Amino acid sequence: MKDHEAAFHLAFRENPFGGEFTIACGLAQVIGLVGEFRFRGSEIDYLAAQRGNDGNQLFDVGFLEHLRALRLTCDIDAVPEGTLIFPNEPLIRVCGPILQCQLLETALLNILNFQSLIATKAARICLAAASDPVIEFGLRRAQGVDGGLSAARAAYVGGCAGTSNLEAGNRFGIPVSGTQAHSWIMFFEDEREAFEKYAQALPNNCVFLVDTYNSLEGVRHAIDVARQLRKDRHEMVGIRLDSGDRVALSIEARKMLDHAGFPEAKIVCSGDLDEFAITELKRRGARIDVWGVGTKLTTGCPDAALGGIYKLGAVRSPGGQWRYRIKLSDETSKVSCPGLLQVRRYSDEHTKFIADAIYEIGHGIREPCVIVDPATDAHEEISPATRFADLVVPIFRKGEVTCEPSKIHESRNYTREQLDRAPPELLKLSNPSRYRVGFEKTLHELRSKLIARAKQQSK
Amino acid sequence: MKDHEAAFHLAFRENPFGGEFTIACGLAQVIGLVGEFRFRGSEIDYLAAQRGNDGNQLFDVGFLEHLRALRLTCDIDAVPEGTLIFPNEPLIRVCGPILQCQLLETALLNILNFQSLIATKAARICLAAASDPVIEFGLRRAQGVDGGLSAARAAYVGGCAGTSNLEAGNRFGIPVSGTQAHSWIMFFEDEREAFEKYAQALPNNCVFLVDTYNSLEGVRHAIDVARQLRKDRHEMVGIRLDSGDRVALSIEARKMLDHAGFPEAKIVCSGDLDEFAITELKRRGARIDVWGVGTKLTTGCPDAALGGIYKLGAVRSPGGQWRYRIKLSDETSKVSCPGLLQVRRYSDEHTKFIADAIYEIGHGIREPCVIVDPATDAHEEISPATRFADLVVPIFRKGEVTCEPSKIHESRNYTREQLDRAPPELLKLSNPSRYRVGFEKTLHELRSKLIARAKQQSK
Repeated sequence: MKDHEAAFHLAFRENPFGGEFTIACGLAQVIGLVGEFRFRGSEIDYLAAQRGNDGNQLFDVGFLEHLRALRLTCDIDAVPEGTLIFPNEPLIRVCGPILQCQLLETALLNILNFQSLIATKAARICLAAASDPVIEFGLRRAQGVDGGLSAARAAYVGGCAGTSNLEAGNRFGIPVSGTQAHSWIMFFEDEREAFEKYAQALPNNCVFLVDTYNSLEGVRHAIDVARQLRKDRHEMVGIRLDSGDRVALSIEARKMLDHAGFPEAKIVCSGDLDEFAITELKRRGARIDVWGVGTKLTTGCPDAALGGIYKLGAVRSPGGQWRYRIKLSDETSKVSCPGLLQVRRYSDEHTKFIADAIYEIGHGIREPCVIVDPATDAHEEISPATRFADLVVPIFRKGEVTCEPSKIHESRNYTREQLDRAPPELLKLSNPSRYRVGFEKTLHELRSKLIARAKQQSK
Repeated sequence: MKDHEAAFHLAFRENPFGGEFTIACGLAQVIGLVGEFRFRGSEIDYLAAQRGNDGNQLFDVGFLEHLRALRLTCDIDAVPEGTLIFPNEPLIRVCGPILQCQLLETALLNILNFQSLIATKAARICLAAASDPVIEFGLRRAQGVDGGLSAARAAYVGGCAGTSNLEAGNRFGIPVSGTQAHSWIMFFEDEREAFEKYAQALPNNCVFLVDTYNSLEGVRHAIDVARQLRKDRHEMVGIRLDSGDRVALSIEARKMLDHAGFPEAKIVCSGDLDEFAITELKRRGARIDVWGVGTKLTTGCPDAALGGIYKLGAVRSPGGQWRYRIKLSDETSKVSCPGLLQVRRYSDEHTKFIADAIYEIGHGIREPCVIVDPATDAHEEISPATRFADLVVPIFRKGEVTCEPSKIHESRNYTREQLDRAPPELLKLSNPSRYRVGFEKTLHELRSKLIARAKQQSK
């Protein structure tokens, strides 16, 4: 079957974190992976050593030699990094020899599931922080070394202003930022001495961590040392609150700093934060300028994984027509979608997004466009709109990359632009409005027909 | 201060998953990291490019040259991989020049937090599965590439029988195992043809995935193809149920397989499993032989991170005495512990663990040993026991490794041995009994004294 072609899509079924949107992320890594894809000799040797239940070699030599010589020739289309995306919409489409499509499956899922999860979490946290910068602080709690690196990258794409992860800064060009460790303070006999020594060592990077013993006493020590620093023509950057009642402490610290002549000093807040904690601290009047968010951002807590899946939509023999495919399930939402899929996004005269139609490329869209919610079967006509755009764009043709991977700063800007164009009710952290997205009617009918036929055959 | 020495411990405050135990894991990676630790030129260049808030270089040249030449000279002690460990007990102790101790902090936390979390999750899932093998299936949902690789490793140490992650199999020597993809089935015109083609390609590895259209119809097709396979002198390995009511389906599938002359065929179950789902399926009489567990194992859902911390216990100037250190907090459980710590584990005449005393090495243990729960201040005397062992053992001396890192199979065996020695009530997945663990009384008194003094000073 090696000359048969297939079309696969990677999509998810539910937005994470109880929200109504997801930010696509990870495509830059995918482009790197696909560009370099090949089997190394040691990998072929490993596969050759695998045994079946009769003790004989599992894979035959011809197959292994095929893998050894394999270079990818598939076509890949995807939505750009930073695109706002919704359930059932393809993040990526892979068309080509079925073997190649399958070899990419797990890597694509691994990369896009995780980075999209974290970019989405970061976007939510940045929405909660409004215009305040958010710094990603989570490497020590990340899921493995690369868990930390790709989380720092995705967090930046999602809107964070920087990371404390120096390797991520070096590798991806993300701004880095950090403060002090408790151990720096504890090393010295008292906190004031600790701040003084820090100011001597790094006079141009002083964020004093004030909560080791008593936060407000810490603020007083920071002010004392900042006054000395100013005499030496340096300004402290600010202070950091890492525990305690950060509403009361930040209000009081702000007063103390302003009163002492440091109105520009920033108050950094960290410690068990996420979008809900930040919202609550702001609601209660906390005077925080910068948010350092670790564990819950970097691990995408509480969701841990975006449930992306990679499903076969169509197959064809060499020179043949696409034949559509479907997978059934007892759960309606888990039934797959046939065809080669594209997403058309409609926007109003203010460029705000109003609805998405998922359609089958070969069938196109029957005007006026009607979308069907697969969960409820509700039909809805999209009112004639002034603009629309198709989201899934070419990335590889016959194994050759056809686009420059977007730079991380461009991806981050694109996220911001996409969020600006979203209906505000959609971006609410709790009880958001649903976005209008569904299968275009022609596709819906094709899908229903295939479901009926598959059910008939399996009776 | 570069000649001053410090002692740091990495410990956590709460067992994950609502359980009462944690499995230490990741030391093999730590040994690899420490052994190879040095700054590369590109890293020094990156640090040299960092700017402070006055636009000047952040780090001075002397410091960067110190980093460039740096080779680790610290002493490291740790509990072996697979050790059952409890809150406040050190997984690792690092003693040496404070700069070196600090440079290791984030890497040690990243590695040990994540791998211990996953080894613990795996141990819980394997306890639920009783003697059935559990296969780790989570790479596609893992948090990054290394998230998947180290999770596969930790899951194996925690008790899993294998992984579907071939790269982890190749790199760590973990047995690999897999079945079929839905797309294999969907590619062909019907399920029976799909099974036949698979049996032709891999006659010695046939686990038929039966739920693409209708699970019991799938079992019938599997049996048909297995009969043909048997004529060719091959035995099917079994079938896999991936959705639907897996209690009813497995009971029926078992009957069908037995009746058709395939009593040895395994029933593999997968799909949204964790320790609680497996317990419930078993309680309801499911006839499953092998469990494939993905997302919730590989990401440690719902906890996402073991909250390990790395805290300074003592400092000393060159040739001086250790001076003990403490960090205060409004939350009692977040107050740190002073000194250089060791854990003594007491066991009864049947080698079952009965209690742990965390003690300060310089102070030793005052007999009879009394332990104090830091949360409740409850004191408890450990009855004179026939045996005890100290858990934290030397790994590096002056930067040189002093022990062979344990092989992954040894770590896995050690986990099993440790679980066998634990009181069974401790291993319950819900509402387990608490294990008796506390600060030895002398250490508790030292800690209380330092807390009082620090509070006094910060008033």
